Amino acid sequence: MSAHPRYSLNQATVKYASLAEAIEATKSAGIQSIGVWREPVADIGLDAATRLIADSGLRVSSLCRAGFFTTPDGPDRVAALDDNRRAIEETAALASAGAEGSAAVLVLVAGGLPTGSRDLVGARERVRDALGSLEPFAASAGVTLAVEALHPMFAADRAVVSTLGQAIDLAVEAGPSVGVVVDTYHLWWDPDVLPQIARAGQLGRIASYQVCDWLTPLPADVLLGRGVPGDGHIDFTSLTSAVAETGYDGDIECEIFNADVWARPYDDVAAETSDAFTRVVAPYL
Amino acid sequence: MSAHPRYSLNQATVKYASLAEAIEATKSAGIQSIGVWREPVADIGLDAATRLIADSGLRVSSLCRAGFFTTPDGPDRVAALDDNRRAIEETAALASAGAEGSAAVLVLVAGGLPTGSRDLVGARERVRDALGSLEPFAASAGVTLAVEALHPMFAADRAVVSTLGQAIDLAVEAGPSVGVVVDTYHLWWDPDVLPQIARAGQLGRIASYQVCDWLTPLPADVLLGRGVPGDGHIDFTSLTSAVAETGYDGDIECEIFNADVWARPYDDVAAETSDAFTRVVAPYL
Repeated sequence: MSAHPRYSLNQATVKYASLAEAIEATKSAGIQSIGVWREPVADIGLDAATRLIADSGLRVSSLCRAGFFTTPDGPDRVAALDDNRRAIEETAALASAGAEGSAAVLVLVAGGLPTGSRDLVGARERVRDALGSLEPFAASAGVTLAVEALHPMFAADRAVVSTLGQAIDLAVEAGPSVGVVVDTYHLWWDPDVLPQIARAGQLGRIASYQVCDWLTPLPADVLLGRGVPGDGHIDFTSLTSAVAETGYDGDIECEIFNADVWARPYDDVAAETSDAFTRVVAPYL
Repeated sequence: MSAHPRYSLNQATVKYASLAEAIEATKSAGIQSIGVWREPVADIGLDAATRLIADSGLRVSSLCRAGFFTTPDGPDRVAALDDNRRAIEETAALASAGAEGSAAVLVLVAGGLPTGSRDLVGARERVRDALGSLEPFAASAGVTLAVEALHPMFAADRAVVSTLGQAIDLAVEAGPSVGVVVDTYHLWWDPDVLPQIARAGQLGRIASYQVCDWLTPLPADVLLGRGVPGDGHIDFTSLTSAVAETGYDGDIECEIFNADVWARPYDDVAAETSDAFTRVVAPYL
């Protein structure tokens, strides 16, 4: 089988696969790159994971994910920042193990409002502070921190960074080793998304482009409403063209949270998402 | 019982009440104003509805709702615009029947993507065109059209107007009889919401302020996740203060879509939302 050379299978799309199984599915579909998640790496340990990646011949397109640093000062915040530093080291190790063209990119999800808090402005300030404190560490490790704006429906409980413009502002303020994720699922609705993609490109801040579709009706658990590109409402033409016009030339991940997709054989999911990418996204690169 | 003089019970909060029952519940809680929905008006006819309103002594704070004009040219679009003109006439009649201080404000929900379409930009252009064609009719009827940005999670299937800034832009372009709704539930997450509230005020475009809270986890039907102010994650202090600082002095509606609220006795819902308003919103007016 062949796949588009820039297509990368994000491991969340085959959520229940071990790293070895995810690598096997990726290779079975002729895909050259994989987006790795920390949990399956932790399951086997970083050393074993880097050996698997090195042996696979695949590129690593990103490591998902760290962040979750909206908590106020105290032991929880110290622990969160420590965990982010470990994730930065993991990112560097995995990208070094990956084939040439791997990206040392760590995806960051900001975290929601602390329990019982309604101080959205304060939570956003703590994200800014955390990025500022982590940036030098990331820079010295050769890692790019990629701030991911999540859909505004997750603002309370998952990520207080809600728009691409906000993510870019945070990246610029934090320093050169911080960029942004452009994720179609989270951003497609934004009236300002195309100019903000252009702005992210002009500032050299696009660290990752992730594609998945918006399905309706939303499922009972809205976390799981993501679809294979082409199955939903998102116009991949304009979004992909906007990313391409910035000169972004990295791998492009398909990251799908969807119980039906997760229940299917990993090889089939890899092949079908690769095919969807070739049909729906690749023509606009 | 007493209620804050600017509190208005939006009829959607007692969804299963007839207009007569909603009026009774409103008065039982000492509330002076009601936000009316078109369906219960249609159930009894406009003439009977205006008599009920006139006899009630209540103010009318708005009529919900028209809009739904994202469809391309053709019979469906003609029908949608006709329906909007009827809604404008209904708004004028009901506001005239209401007590002094009633607002001839028609809330507009844009509508989602047409079936099978992914052209979000085109759908938004059709909203702009519809507002432009309806504005002179509204002006001559003495009615303000209030564009309501809905939460971005409704962008595909319900409303392609997703931010307050976008709603203001549409209002300004359409003309002086078009304003915006500031609804906490739909807008609270927006990093730009406070400056956009100020901007709407400077432009004299705030036609309605609606309060309800954001609950987590979202229910299976995300339409029904709205809570009584104070029960969720929204900071009513900053939002209400921002609206108050613009000089907005109209009624403030509590509009709650929530199956548990709808299942309760109407008088209890009226009293409890009024009490919540007094505790959570009124101190910042």
